[in-house]
Amino acid sequence: MDLATVAGIIIAFSLVIGAIMSGGSLMLFIDFPSILIVLGGTIGATLINYPFGYMIEVLRVIKKTFFSSVEPPTAIIAQFMDYANRARREGILALEPVIKEVKDDYLRKGLQLTVDGFEPQIIQDILELEIGYREDRHDLGAEMMLVMGAFAPAMGMIGTVIGLVQMLQSMNDPSAIGPAMAVALITTFYGALLANLIFLPMAGKLKTRNKEEILNMEMILNGILCISNGDNPRIVAEKLNSFLPPKQRESTD
Amino acid sequence: MDLATVAGIIIAFSLVIGAIMSGGSLMLFIDFPSILIVLGGTIGATLINYPFGYMIEVLRVIKKTFFSSVEPPTAIIAQFMDYANRARREGILALEPVIKEVKDDYLRKGLQLTVDGFEPQIIQDILELEIGYREDRHDLGAEMMLVMGAFAPAMGMIGTVIGLVQMLQSMNDPSAIGPAMAVALITTFYGALLANLIFLPMAGKLKTRNKEEILNMEMILNGILCISNGDNPRIVAEKLNSFLPPKQRESTD
Amino acid sequence: MDLATVAGIIIAFSLVIGAIMSGGSLMLFIDFPSILIVLGGTIGATLINYPFGYMIEVLRVIKKTFFSSVEPPTAIIAQFMDYANRARREGILALEPVIKEVKDDYLRKGLQLTVDGFEPQIIQDILELEIGYREDRHDLGAEMMLVMGAFAPAMGMIGTVIGLVQMLQSMNDPSAIGPAMAVALITTFYGALLANLIFLPMAGKLKTRNKEEILNMEMILNGILCISNGDNPRIVAEKLNSFLPPKQRESTD
Amino acid sequence: MDLATVAGIIIAFSLVIGAIMSGGSLMLFIDFPSILIVLGGTIGATLINYPFGYMIEVLRVIKKTFFSSVEPPTAIIAQFMDYANRARREGILALEPVIKEVKDDYLRKGLQLTVDGFEPQIIQDILELEIGYREDRHDLGAEMMLVMGAFAPAMGMIGTVIGLVQMLQSMNDPSAIGPAMAVALITTFYGALLANLIFLPMAGKLKTRNKEEILNMEMILNGILCISNGDNPRIVAEKLNSFLPPKQRESTD
Amino acid sequence: MDLATVAGIIIAFSLVIGAIMSGGSLMLFIDFPSILIVLGGTIGATLINYPFGYMIEVLRVIKKTFFSSVEPPTAIIAQFMDYANRARREGILALEPVIKEVKDDYLRKGLQLTVDGFEPQIIQDILELEIGYREDRHDLGAEMMLVMGAFAPAMGMIGTVIGLVQMLQSMNDPSAIGPAMAVALITTFYGALLANLIFLPMAGKLKTRNKEEILNMEMILNGILCISNGDNPRIVAEKLNSFLPPKQRESTD
Repeated sequence: MDLATVAGIIIAFSLVIGAIMSGGSLMLFIDFPSILIVLGGTIGATLINYPFGYMIEVLRVIKKTFFSSVEPPTAIIAQFMDYANRARREGILALEPVIKEVKDDYLRKGLQLTVDGFEPQIIQDILELEIGYREDRHDLGAEMMLVMGAFAPAMGMIGTVIGLVQMLQSMNDPSAIGPAMAVALITTFYGALLANLIFLPMAGKLKTRNKEEILNMEMILNGILCISNGDNPRIVAEKLNSFLPPKQRESTD
Repeated sequence: MDLATVAGIIIAFSLVIGAIMSGGSLMLFIDFPSILIVLGGTIGATLINYPFGYMIEVLRVIKKTFFSSVEPPTAIIAQFMDYANRARREGILALEPVIKEVKDDYLRKGLQLTVDGFEPQIIQDILELEIGYREDRHDLGAEMMLVMGAFAPAMGMIGTVIGLVQMLQSMNDPSAIGPAMAVALITTFYGALLANLIFLPMAGKLKTRNKEEILNMEMILNGILCISNGDNPRIVAEKLNSFLPPKQRESTD
Repeated sequence: MDLATVAGIIIAFSLVIGAIMSGGSLMLFIDFPSILIVLGGTIGATLINYPFGYMIEVLRVIKKTFFSSVEPPTAIIAQFMDYANRARREGILALEPVIKEVKDDYLRKGLQLTVDGFEPQIIQDILELEIGYREDRHDLGAEMMLVMGAFAPAMGMIGTVIGLVQMLQSMNDPSAIGPAMAVALITTFYGALLANLIFLPMAGKLKTRNKEEILNMEMILNGILCISNGDNPRIVAEKLNSFLPPKQRESTD
Repeated sequence: MDLATVAGIIIAFSLVIGAIMSGGSLMLFIDFPSILIVLGGTIGATLINYPFGYMIEVLRVIKKTFFSSVEPPTAIIAQFMDYANRARREGILALEPVIKEVKDDYLRKGLQLTVDGFEPQIIQDILELEIGYREDRHDLGAEMMLVMGAFAPAMGMIGTVIGLVQMLQSMNDPSAIGPAMAVALITTFYGALLANLIFLPMAGKLKTRNKEEILNMEMILNGILCISNGDNPRIVAEKLNSFLPPKQRESTD
Repeated sequence: MDLATVAGIIIAFSLVIGAIMSGGSLMLFIDFPSILIVLGGTIGATLINYPFGYMIEVLRVIKKTFFSSVEPPTAIIAQFMDYANRARREGILALEPVIKEVKDDYLRKGLQLTVDGFEPQIIQDILELEIGYREDRHDLGAEMMLVMGAFAPAMGMIGTVIGLVQMLQSMNDPSAIGPAMAVALITTFYGALLANLIFLPMAGKLKTRNKEEILNMEMILNGILCISNGDNPRIVAEKLNSFLPPKQRESTD
């Protein structure tokens, strides 16, 4: 559970609602047709921008901003120190029984290739290909959020221009100008809100999560290659510790 | 057929039209000279920006956002498992009869070079050159749409400034100010609409399609090199599966 | 002659002039001091931005957007197939008489180095250096146009702010406000026009032309290296065809 | 202590406050609800954008813009000249007693690996991994400030739109329009102030400090590799001096 | 002396002053507190953005946009042809007496390393390190100007918002609105002027000068490596000529 996402949304929206209510009724800012054109138009533009299959991805990706389960990098180091010591003492085949217990797809694949005795260069090629394409796929989720964060204010602006044109065409009653312009501005408000409090920060959270996942995969890649090369456990520790901030490193003595 | 493009255009434009009609007549927003200056000016600027030959490309590229036939990556893996097994059992020449049935230019070229016995390094050079330049050419289509998506709002803004200058010059009748300003804003409306609901999302769709095509070409490149190197079918499977999200992978046992 | 540039300028400017004349006199939009501050200010800022010698480059570069003579890539392939066959049959020295007839500096240099018997690695170093720096120099032309396309609207905005400040200072006569504001907006109009219908699309045309020239140079580089390596003409054909879209390729049988 | 940060904040804010007070009361610009929506909304959006743990990083990072202790590069060169000479005369093991006195984690790790006799290639792999990930982590701090510098003006704009909508809805009393609009603009003012005088320049300071730290690490990396390779002290001096501007270099004779 | 910088500043500023004086008094646009908040605020933000030491760099860098002494690349080629011929005829040591006469630090260092007989690979490492870090340091100057070019309009905008809020709060006398708004706009005017006629084009000039310097260093690097490798003078000529536009090349016969 990513509490920061929940806390951020609650804080930001309650401040916005509070600011509205301190100056008047909340109802002034709730206008269903305005929501429809901004949100619906954004969805429409996003559908033109991506194939259908990707839209389901959006839902999966929004879920990911609320829930996340990236393993702490220190746990990965501990695991690899264990693997390296076993492989050193009992040979690489000693890792065979470990494989079944491993939950992470990528680590399991790497260990299996190592135990099966493929050359380090081939293992590296395969595992690097996987990091590369995993990164591309994950970046797609963040990119979709960025795209929606660009279309939402544009739709808000289009809605406001429509409202302004209609107001300007029928400017007989000066007292009606204010409220008509207020309504026209509501779509700008929705566009800015959706972009800055939903789409863009969610894109940021996804990018952060992806970086953490890719960091873990790169640690696993380095660890697997060390084991496959039969490196000294000391080298494994030094290499993998290089991924961590100095404070999180454990003494390797 | 790319239904998402059709659905997106229908959703977005019906919402915009609905928003207009809920507030007044649609006719207020249909102004032929305004369409002419925004669309024509955008086409003019695009002609200065690209050689004539590229403009035909625009039409081809728009068509591509509606129709697309990217082969699913899983089919490519199945194909290569078959090739790798045949080559393993019967030798590389066993692939000769397959070549004629292959429809994809790139795959056919790769297989032909392999069967003809060129060295893997030379095959890689040739096939990588082709990916590189194919990517450049395809990116061009998306880039042209982005360029048009930048010129359209600029032309809309130029149209609005023209209208404002004319209105301000003849401000004798205050009751005429509103409608004149409304007309001036129509070009801004067209520019925003063309950019955000046509050009920019179409550029996005093209980029997505190109990425899918390049991914397939990279899978084919990797597969061809494995066969040309005489790699174990297991390695072929592991390498090509690295391109897929874990869920789509098939067990290789 | 690049007809697209001419056609684009004619289309775009006649639409803008048409839009102006349909709403009033063209004279309203012709204001010599406004042209002076926008165009002169842009030239001034560009002089601060680039050394004197580069400004002559601007004129050369503008000419290039109207005239261009990039050789079609298919002609280059035909040429190299001929060279490769001759070199194969009669030895590399058979290319000596060809060199004098070659007009393109780069191709001539490459052939001369090959005939002189330098090692492929040295030829590659020299020819790649030249591509790299040619690309830098040519990008400079497009970059100068982009820079002018950024300064022009800024100068337009500065002109408008000057006009607004003067108008606001002397707001005694309300009927004079409109026309004064109209005049102030003219510089914004010029800035947008210069940027979006001249500088930015010309930058685009230059970038496109440069890409075509660099593509040809890369084809020549690949062809020269094949010949210098004594490659099979079939490899030459496959490599050079990789630069072309499939439709333009000729059968190599 | 980074006096420039302190001086910059004092100069910029006293000028802003001076500009306000020269035109009226400072109290006009102090509006607690406006501060709340801009600052609180920015924090909320940043929480959605980053995991909780990163927010503590923000505080650490702000502190870093005020205090900094990057070692001068010339001191690093002097140190390495000493190490290189000792290693040359007495062998690499002569560096063992030095290690304990070294405070910098990175330098100590590099020396330890060298003294332990690992191969230069392995030392380079480990130390480069560490530079890469240290750079990523440090860039994160600057990136968080940039993100906050983007959200703050957006929240300011949202606040202003809210104020405008409320003002326009109740435009009965024309004399109230001015003050209401003034209040609406205050959030725009806060957003611009936070972004341009706090978040964005602090992001710049962090980037500058990170570059200095990474430069030092790259000098250390080059120095360690020279020692591990047993390079001539003259080469060590030439290499490390290459990192400095010519004026700061000391004669190596 | 870089006359283009002087000419550009004179042209741009006389046009702006001319535009102002053709419409009223220049004094309307001279407002000391406005200059203070825009220029002072920009300096303040820049101090937060960079350490103190870098601010002196700003002055050095501004001087550099007026004075510059980049050696013409053709002179470098002539020099190296001479060195290469001497080294070819009399051996590398024949270059020893030349070194003392060389003024350029980088060329002298390269020649010294060559004469001292270091291996080409080591010379290349040292000279490339120096190009890399020289480029970083020089880019810093251009970057500082860009940063100031971003802060100046932001400070102008902040000044205008302050003015608008004060004006709107005290809108009792309608005839005072115009002049108050005019004053508020002056900071926007200063910000745009400083950014577009000083900071941004100076950043451009610095970037151009740095490119020229780096180009010369890359020519020197290539020349030194040729000599250190004992390359044929013909290769030296071909390599170094690759850096020049075809027109500037001299026949090497």
